[in-house]
Amino acid sequence: MAARPKLHYPNGRGRMESVRWLLAAAGVEFDEEFLETKEQLHKLQDGNHLLFQQVPMVEIDGMKLVQTRSILHYIADKYHLFGKDLKERTLIDMYVEGTLDLLELIIMHPFLKPDDQQKEMVSMAQKAKIRYFPVFEKILRDHGQSFLVGNQLSLADVILLQTILALEEKIPNILSAFPFLQEYSVKISNIPTIKRFLEPGSKKKPPPDEIYVALS
Amino acid sequence: MAARPKLHYPNGRGRMESVRWLLAAAGVEFDEEFLETKEQLHKLQDGNHLLFQQVPMVEIDGMKLVQTRSILHYIADKYHLFGKDLKERTLIDMYVEGTLDLLELIIMHPFLKPDDQQKEMVSMAQKAKIRYFPVFEKILRDHGQSFLVGNQLSLADVILLQTILALEEKIPNILSAFPFLQEYSVKISNIPTIKRFLEPGSKKKPPPDEIYVALS
Repeated sequence: MAARPKLHYPNGRGRMESVRWLLAAAGVEFDEEFLETKEQLHKLQDGNHLLFQQVPMVEIDGMKLVQTRSILHYIADKYHLFGKDLKERTLIDMYVEGTLDLLELIIMHPFLKPDDQQKEMVSMAQKAKIRYFPVFEKILRDHGQSFLVGNQLSLADVILLQTILALEEKIPNILSAFPFLQEYSVKISNIPTIKRFLEPGSKKKPPPDEIYVALS
Repeated sequence: MAARPKLHYPNGRGRMESVRWLLAAAGVEFDEEFLETKEQLHKLQDGNHLLFQQVPMVEIDGMKLVQTRSILHYIADKYHLFGKDLKERTLIDMYVEGTLDLLELIIMHPFLKPDDQQKEMVSMAQKAKIRYFPVFEKILRDHGQSFLVGNQLSLADVILLQTILALEEKIPNILSAFPFLQEYSVKISNIPTIKRFLEPGSKKKPPPDEIYVALS
């Protein structure tokens, strides 16, 4: 039996949370080594375990993967969450890249100066409602299927659901004008592997609190 | 005969320059539609030609690709510049993601406030010399081959050479402590398709000047 993947990152969402989502959606059990101190990070760096001296890092299949997107791509490839051909793969890739642009704003938000946080919240909501969500709403409405691409679960669905739920924590009515995305969000949340990840006791991390932000 | 790819972007480097590099390296002729005015951008947006209302956009094989990485991945897949198996692909992906993090600093540099530009130049040089170049120097030294992965040209080589040359324009001696990268840089520059791209009259764009920055 292959070893379980081991994730190296602080005990918080950050850029690793997408990896946790994707492994959970794929039904893959994983372990976590939380970086609680600078010394732990330096130990990884000094031991040449981090290609570019940064986490996220994931030990999987004898490799030490770094760079969020590269980790996501490898897992998506391995677990058949990247489409059935190059055309589907490219659609998934574009949807993921757009969604990650939005997710990045959410990830960085708690680290902004308090004065900038409210302004950025408005700008983020606008971008979600004007630039990103209409695209996905139209895709779902037009093809009438349960998933974004190829009528089956892909990396694009996992990252979109993660982003929708993270945004809804901050802006509960963010999907009010998007009935197809509302229905989609419920359906994807009820896929058994994802449903378990959304239940208490899973490896899903809570939103960053002030202590986490201060330590990061 | 398939139509030539058409690139939609302002007449400057920005995020499209990597796409120009990659197509040129692959020996693919392409056309460019330069966005000179806001009206041209709005026309593309209003006609639903831009998935997330942004350029770069590339018309290729009947698709309108957006998001820099997705465009690069599609072209790399199509022209066999993404490794021979998932393991090579993942190495290429990690090397590209690291290099793009450095390239992004170079792309954004001219848009910083004048006071911040000098400080950022020092920080950028440090990152190149401490975080990124040592990794690639070691790879080349250890395997003794001409290319980063699998002993043949890949997306990783193209993006790394683009980044090295862009950085050398700003900091001419940036490779002084990296003899293997110096040799590598000369060798990759002499690949015929890339050599042509580096010669006057190619579609390679000049460094951004003040006028370009002011109009962007």
